[in-house]
Amino acid sequence: MTAMFPGSFDPPTLGHLDIIKRSAKLYDKLYVVVAANIKKQTLFTPQERKEMLVTILSDLDNVEVVVYSGLVVNFARENNIEVMIRGVRALVDFGYEFELAMTNKKLYDKLEVLFMPTSPSYFLLRSSQIKELAFYHADISTMVPPLVADKIKAIYEEES
Amino acid sequence: MTAMFPGSFDPPTLGHLDIIKRSAKLYDKLYVVVAANIKKQTLFTPQERKEMLVTILSDLDNVEVVVYSGLVVNFARENNIEVMIRGVRALVDFGYEFELAMTNKKLYDKLEVLFMPTSPSYFLLRSSQIKELAFYHADISTMVPPLVADKIKAIYEEES
Amino acid sequence: MTAMFPGSFDPPTLGHLDIIKRSAKLYDKLYVVVAANIKKQTLFTPQERKEMLVTILSDLDNVEVVVYSGLVVNFARENNIEVMIRGVRALVDFGYEFELAMTNKKLYDKLEVLFMPTSPSYFLLRSSQIKELAFYHADISTMVPPLVADKIKAIYEEES
Amino acid sequence: MTAMFPGSFDPPTLGHLDIIKRSAKLYDKLYVVVAANIKKQTLFTPQERKEMLVTILSDLDNVEVVVYSGLVVNFARENNIEVMIRGVRALVDFGYEFELAMTNKKLYDKLEVLFMPTSPSYFLLRSSQIKELAFYHADISTMVPPLVADKIKAIYEEES
Amino acid sequence: MTAMFPGSFDPPTLGHLDIIKRSAKLYDKLYVVVAANIKKQTLFTPQERKEMLVTILSDLDNVEVVVYSGLVVNFARENNIEVMIRGVRALVDFGYEFELAMTNKKLYDKLEVLFMPTSPSYFLLRSSQIKELAFYHADISTMVPPLVADKIKAIYEEES
Amino acid sequence: MTAMFPGSFDPPTLGHLDIIKRSAKLYDKLYVVVAANIKKQTLFTPQERKEMLVTILSDLDNVEVVVYSGLVVNFARENNIEVMIRGVRALVDFGYEFELAMTNKKLYDKLEVLFMPTSPSYFLLRSSQIKELAFYHADISTMVPPLVADKIKAIYEEES
Repeated sequence: MTAMFPGSFDPPTLGHLDIIKRSAKLYDKLYVVVAANIKKQTLFTPQERKEMLVTILSDLDNVEVVVYSGLVVNFARENNIEVMIRGVRALVDFGYEFELAMTNKKLYDKLEVLFMPTSPSYFLLRSSQIKELAFYHADISTMVPPLVADKIKAIYEEES
Repeated sequence: MTAMFPGSFDPPTLGHLDIIKRSAKLYDKLYVVVAANIKKQTLFTPQERKEMLVTILSDLDNVEVVVYSGLVVNFARENNIEVMIRGVRALVDFGYEFELAMTNKKLYDKLEVLFMPTSPSYFLLRSSQIKELAFYHADISTMVPPLVADKIKAIYEEES
Repeated sequence: MTAMFPGSFDPPTLGHLDIIKRSAKLYDKLYVVVAANIKKQTLFTPQERKEMLVTILSDLDNVEVVVYSGLVVNFARENNIEVMIRGVRALVDFGYEFELAMTNKKLYDKLEVLFMPTSPSYFLLRSSQIKELAFYHADISTMVPPLVADKIKAIYEEES
Repeated sequence: MTAMFPGSFDPPTLGHLDIIKRSAKLYDKLYVVVAANIKKQTLFTPQERKEMLVTILSDLDNVEVVVYSGLVVNFARENNIEVMIRGVRALVDFGYEFELAMTNKKLYDKLEVLFMPTSPSYFLLRSSQIKELAFYHADISTMVPPLVADKIKAIYEEES
Repeated sequence: MTAMFPGSFDPPTLGHLDIIKRSAKLYDKLYVVVAANIKKQTLFTPQERKEMLVTILSDLDNVEVVVYSGLVVNFARENNIEVMIRGVRALVDFGYEFELAMTNKKLYDKLEVLFMPTSPSYFLLRSSQIKELAFYHADISTMVPPLVADKIKAIYEEES
Repeated sequence: MTAMFPGSFDPPTLGHLDIIKRSAKLYDKLYVVVAANIKKQTLFTPQERKEMLVTILSDLDNVEVVVYSGLVVNFARENNIEVMIRGVRALVDFGYEFELAMTNKKLYDKLEVLFMPTSPSYFLLRSSQIKELAFYHADISTMVPPLVADKIKAIYEEES
């Protein structure tokens, strides 16, 4: 069975990694889909995000990282994907996730959206917050993989 | 891969059936586990609930209905089950479900709890509410399978 | 147009009064329906609750207080009632109210359930909490009408 | 009695129509008020939104569609409107709606804000999401009236 | 400044200990108030709960454990306490806590209720759940202090 | 003991004042910290906000108003502050506040974040909403101190 885990991954966090590692055990193949939303302003380009993920996930054989622009359900339809994994944090707006799941199912009925609870240690790792902390030069080394921490640091040092 | 779907099923609703049918497609084997909680007062005995489910689910070859008393994580451990499916309704107290999932994972680390959103048509089917409606002789035929509707009706007619 | 405002009213609070007074202005006739749920243990009998409400609401000409046992939607159907008013407090479990509204509409499609927000001054007036406070002889005179305060006091003084 | 149903209606959805049709039955006159918020970027101009609504609602005799810039409570005050209807979806941020209702009542005490629950079939119809789906050329024909679907399609085809 | 931390403590958990230790640093004196609610069925008597807490908290010099029956605000009033600490877990029903705080302030205006967020490691430690786990002989050693674990074990072994 | 109360205060509301006055009684010294977030567009400059607060709070001897750009936890660390007070309204997104508290504690472990419930009379006073009301020339005199009302009025009159 094939599953997908879509997201912005701007940047990838330890929370994302936790969900990816746990999901990879449950499916024959897992696509990590970097959403290339042209409207949103991002820190890293989709290609940069993909490259970071490929490096970080290199030891997971059944994981493939791809960039996709468009509705993620379309990626599911084109690749015969039956399951979409969404990480849910206790503190997140679950209503929004639920609604998205319903809409996605309406657009592609064969897809099941399954919510996987984030591990308590990663409750606090929201990409947008990490970027704000990094902007103020706070220590983010417990929130993202070392490779990502380095890249973010480089960006904000350049700016200042 | 083997999954389980635990619950009280007192009585089984069309909402339960929706989750079971959709889950059965995703796993090689699905255990439907009727929790026999001796402390809770129920309308049907665990054995009666199991029998109703067996009849209703007879056309799903990879589903097995069992009665289990004790913590459901122990059933998972004893049967090498890797996934526990929980149906979540938009209107449910998600916090409670999240907490239960965390506790279960703490007790048996190999188990992943995945939340599957209930289909909108079944949002309202809460077993306790259906029993109350039936108590007042309201029409519950759109909420439970015919077999279950008949059995509930028989109980409340006997009482009055 | 005829509306109804159902509840347990055990006891009636200033919050209930607020909703009743505001609703009475919006409809030709308003039924205040005291639910006589035989399963629930109450402080006052349905008849006692009705009598308190009749006295308190005596200056509202278009309000009629009735006791009803059974599903409140049936009362609506029998009396051609088109609107059911529910008071919602910001702090209440809105999900539960929503679900109840959906179920009621399913049982009687002609009925519209409308939620009226409780005034901020009455946010805290939950019948169950008032009873607990009264049990410990706390001052509840700002939470219920004087008549109700006297009757509750009488009960708990008798007990101790 | 006169009521109003304010909103952005950018675009009008089947969910809006559901609330309007049900509300129109409850009041002698219903104003559908298109808020012309100059700060917000919209897909359609207020005038275009009004025209779509007028066409769609042409068979409802007691409904009048107007454009209003300014606080909607002021419209209520100027037109002696006693009730403001707000549709609430189970998945929406109810707290925000509650707060808005309180503020509106504070600004114009004679106005009652009543929440009408959206029908389950329309739970997912959020204007902003529909625009995003349309942007990616997804099928929105089950979410908005045909007239609206055509107009949105025309806009996004022009763009690409 | 004097503060109080009221609760049922049936049994005391590591989550309670976390809040007590952190609060004790913030105030000159901290009362840990064991509520003796005669209506609730408990596993331990108020006296037993007090004794466990006294032993566990023996190294905190400014903490005093007391049993109190009645409204906790009355204890605050009698002892000139200015602050009541409540631990809040992300997953708890915050609305209920808020309401309780408002009511307590209404009954005793000089009292400030302050919410202290529970540490993530203790998110899952709800007394009622721990009792249920213990009932099924699950391992609760990471949830309560060793002394408490032993006492609970003794009770449930006796029963079976 | 020293505490801090950080915020944007754009503009300061009566709700802010309520929290500040109540907090000032609980600590030897209270810093009111005006966050100077360069990314956010504001109505008043940080300096203007500070000046308004200094005037309004002039009778509170143990309160000091400061402007700070950077993470507020850094201000706490630099000034040996042990407590951060956050006002919570019943209607606010508590999850977000909780998360922020956890992150702040992670960055500076000696800091305790305590939530103080806003008084019911100030539930509705959200700075952003007040600005919107003022933009439409609605009466905001019951929401902000007179000084602030005058300054806001001046800005919007100039604009139109």
